[in-house]
Order: sequence, then structure tokens, then C-alpha cells
Amino acid sequence: MDIFFLGTGAGMPAKLRNVTSIALKLLEERGAIWLFDCGEATQHQILHTSIKPRRIEKIFITHLHGDHIYGLPGLLSSRSFQGGESEVILYGPKGIKEYVEISLTVSQTYLKYPLKIVEIKEGTIFEDEEFIVEARLLEHGIPSYGYRVIEKDRPGTLLADKLQEAGIKPGPIYRKIKNGETVKLDDGRVIEPNEFLGKAQKGRVVTILGDTRKCEAAFELATGADLLVHEATFSAGEENLAFEYFHSTTLQAAEIAKQANVKKLCLTHISSRYDRNDWIELVQESKKIFPHTEIAEDFKEVHIPLEK
Amino acid sequence: MDIFFLGTGAGMPAKLRNVTSIALKLLEERGAIWLFDCGEATQHQILHTSIKPRRIEKIFITHLHGDHIYGLPGLLSSRSFQGGESEVILYGPKGIKEYVEISLTVSQTYLKYPLKIVEIKEGTIFEDEEFIVEARLLEHGIPSYGYRVIEKDRPGTLLADKLQEAGIKPGPIYRKIKNGETVKLDDGRVIEPNEFLGKAQKGRVVTILGDTRKCEAAFELATGADLLVHEATFSAGEENLAFEYFHSTTLQAAEIAKQANVKKLCLTHISSRYDRNDWIELVQESKKIFPHTEIAEDFKEVHIPLEK
Ligand SMILES: [Zn+2]
Ligand SMILES: [Zn+2]
Repeated sequence: MDIFFLGTGAGMPAKLRNVTSIALKLLEERGAIWLFDCGEATQHQILHTSIKPRRIEKIFITHLHGDHIYGLPGLLSSRSFQGGESEVILYGPKGIKEYVEISLTVSQTYLKYPLKIVEIKEGTIFEDEEFIVEARLLEHGIPSYGYRVIEKDRPGTLLADKLQEAGIKPGPIYRKIKNGETVKLDDGRVIEPNEFLGKAQKGRVVTILGDTRKCEAAFELATGADLLVHEATFSAGEENLAFEYFHSTTLQAAEIAKQANVKKLCLTHISSRYDRNDWIELVQESKKIFPHTEIAEDFKEVHIPLEK
Repeated sequence: MDIFFLGTGAGMPAKLRNVTSIALKLLEERGAIWLFDCGEATQHQILHTSIKPRRIEKIFITHLHGDHIYGLPGLLSSRSFQGGESEVILYGPKGIKEYVEISLTVSQTYLKYPLKIVEIKEGTIFEDEEFIVEARLLEHGIPSYGYRVIEKDRPGTLLADKLQEAGIKPGPIYRKIKNGETVKLDDGRVIEPNEFLGKAQKGRVVTILGDTRKCEAAFELATGADLLVHEATFSAGEENLAFEYFHSTTLQAAEIAKQANVKKLCLTHISSRYDRNDWIELVQESKKIFPHTEIAEDFKEVHIPLEK
């Protein structure tokens, strides 16, 4: 599981940072990429990476500002052109459906794969055997969602050798033990499943937020996360400006990370007023409050390790 | 007057060629840029040029395929962000208004300049003191326009010194002579305006076509043009493929250029199946029929000189 930053700028494309898009690479976990936001020229950025558009399984849009959605029609079209045939599910605020459908219809684009568009509300927006995705509204003037991606804990593997040694023969009982059930054998023995299971693997949590002021929902979505991706449009000291424009500063992102006790913080959505030299300072501002801070850059990859 | 190629590829962005956009630089003539088509990431391409988005006065869309329009919402938004205040007039086929308006509305983008959208039909779509723009439908499966930009002839400048020498004093009569009127003086002399005017300057003609099969309208729009920009999606010999997909080959573009007796031909909309080495061959194919051929490349500028 890795986060790959495709675009990390704010508002408008600039030479050093494209507008927002973040790929959550779940290649080992499900052979898939999940995309968060899709600013203009996201598909162009992808051209310079190893990401295959046909691997994109889900796209989560945080909010409808142009710098977060104008790359969608092009990406969806090119995925079809390039032979993508598997379904894509697009999640986003109300309005995303009209935007995408009109763009594709006017341009007479016919996708060769099923595209499902889900206009979301707060709550659990997706769940399967492996993952849960929760969405909460942040504070950005227009509806802007934050997403908490929860990987489910994986039960330990069955220790078949140990079972055999204990004289327990393969059969339906193995499945019960694997599922964590306490089992009573015919000979009266009571088997505690944990004795015959490897260590359970704790799932990871990644929190990716849309543009926002510092807010309570951000904290709640981030609580205990392995990685928090938080916008930091402005530098510390610009809290008034950030408030006025419904954005956050480096300092505020760090405060959320600290309060939520996350493992790592990535700052993104950096204003083009800051150049390469400033970026070092931006990280330092955050590190004073929350040491495990990194600043996102276009084409930077951040690994999210399993807990040992 | 120069043509600046911002994107010269077909269908999808590729590493060597972005999707279509062409800037007609009329900086000396009217301090303005006219844009023809606006594929995704046209604004990104512009970032690497001297073109100022606020100078963009008119945008002409040839047809509504995604590779020709998906850059519009971003370009229009960023022009506003960057302080553009003067009006933009956008011309294009029916449907362009809905696409742009929904894109801007959904993303809650409020432009700080007036945007006028004109859904065109064939004929003269614009005329002022200096320029005429004519549009004709080509053959591309969906409505695809070609544009003929006609610079009006400029009358010669008034030779005031020569008038003074001839004893003709400044006054309303000067204006009449400048306008090309024959004037009778009080002393009975008849003044032929041409004697007191510098050489008239013949206006230039630039023809920029949307995607098309080889067709009669292309020929008519191109007749006698100083520069013809014609698509050449495929190489010579692929005429069947070109016909099937409503495109042209290098050979067909050259035939139109020759038949229409243009001064120069630029091939664009080159399929990504062709690489740098192939491009040399593509030009050669066209040159056999029409020697004054160039192949467009992203960031290439072609000057259109005044007739001496
Ligand atoms: Zn934003
Ligand atoms: Zn095209």
C-alpha cells in the first residue's frame, strides 16, 4: 500500500506542482489503484508513471472545484481508449454526475467499460471483505469530503502443522478455528483458536482530506491513522488568510495530526506562492508540532507499511 | 502574425504530442491571441510559452471531441484567476455552450470577465475593420468546422509630404484621399488617390481545419491561403483507414494544399503511432505532392509574413 502524489498544487496548475490528484496504490492488496481527485492533466501526469489507467478501480472526488475535477472526462475517455474494460465507480458530491455525463455526452464519448457514479452523503460509502471507506464533510464553503480508508484486520493463518501435532484431523473444524471460534472436540478437549492461529494482521488506515479549514471532522477521520494527507495551502502564521479562503496552514494540519495521533502526516495542496526553498520551511513549521511530517511533491511515493 | 502549435497529437495526450490546440498570434495586428481548439492541458502547455492567457480574445472550437475541448474549463478559469478582465468570445458547434456552462457552474467558477459563447453555423461568423472569419463544415462524422481567417487589405498610408509639395493643404480632403476617393480641387485639378498613397498592403489568409476526411469544403476554405493547417492523422497509403475514421492522410492534405494553391502547408493531428523518425517520412510523403510542407510539433512557431 502506497500513496503516489500525482498533483500537489492549489487552485491552478503551476510549473512545479500540478493540480490535485492522489493515487492510493493497492496493487498487492487488490491489484487496483484508487484515485482521490482528478485535476486537469492528471492523465498527463500518469503518462510519466508506472500507473496503468485500466487498474483504476475507484475514483473518490473530495469536492467540485475545478482544480479537483477538470481532469475526469479526459482520464475516463483515455482509460477506454487504452483498453480498460473493468468497471469504474466514481464517488463524489452531488453535481459530479451531471458534470461527467454532460462532458462525455457533448463530446460523444462512449466508454467501453461500465462507469457507475455515486453521489455520496456522510457515512460508510463502501465496504467489502477487505476495505471500508468512510466519508465526512469538512469545512470548505462548498461541500468537501474527507475520506478514511480502513483496511480490515486480517485473521492469522491457520497453523495446520500444529493442529496435526495435537492430533486434530483436517475437517470442518479447521474452518471454525480459522474463523476464531472456540471449539469443543469429541474427546472433551476445548480448543482456543488463538493457540492454532498465526498473528492477526492489523489493517492500515489512510485518511485523505479534501480542501478544508481546520475542523473537528478532519480530526475524527484522522484518528489513529497510519497516514494523514492534509491540505496546507498556506504557511504557519497565515491562519486568518486560511480561514477566509476555507483552507488550512501547515501549523493547523500538524495540530490535527498530533491531536489525532496519526503515524505520519503528508502536507499537500501547497500554494504556488511558495517555491522550492519555502517548502523546507513549510515542513519545519509542521515538524515543530508533529515531527513525522513530509511535504508532498508531484511524483512522490509514500509507503504505508503493515504493522510488525 | 504567427501560428504557435500548443498541441499537435490525435485522440489522446502522448509524451511527444499533447492533444490539439493552436494559437494564432495577432500581437502586432491587434494585441491578441486567437485560440483554435483547447484540448486538455492546453493551459499547462501555455505555462511554458510567452503566451499570456489574458491576451486570448477569441477561441474557435472546430468540433466537440474531447481531445479538442477538455482543456476549456481550466483555461477559462485560470484566465480569470490570473487577472484576465477583457471579454472572451468562444465560437463552436452546438453543444459547446452547455458543456462550458455546466463545467463552470458545477465547479462554482465565477469568471471575472465576460464570456460570450456563440454556437455557429456555416458562413461569416466574425467581421470587424481588420479581420473576417468564415466557417465551413468538413467531414468528420460529427459537425467539424474549418475556419478561414482573412486579414483585410490595408490601404496605403497617405503621403502627406507629397500632398504638401503639390500645394494641397491639410483638411477634410486628406481623409477622402486616404479612403481612396477621387477628389476635384477648387482650382479644377482632379486628384487620383493612388498618386498620394503608399502601396496598399494585401491581407493574409490563414486556414485552420478541424478533423476531417479529404473534402471539398477544405479546398474552398484553403483556396489561395498563405498558410493551411490540415490534419494528417495517418501516413500516405492509409487512405482506407483515414476514410473509415473520418480523418486524412499526409497525401490527402498535400493534395488539398496543391489544389488550393496555398503558400504553405502545416500537417498536424499526428497519430501517436508515429514516432520522431516517422515524422520525417510523413513530411516527405507530403512534399512529393506539395513541396512547401512542414510538420507541426508542440511548441513550434510558424511565421506568416506580409507580402512584399
Ligand atoms: Zn483545491
Ligand atoms: Zn481529434
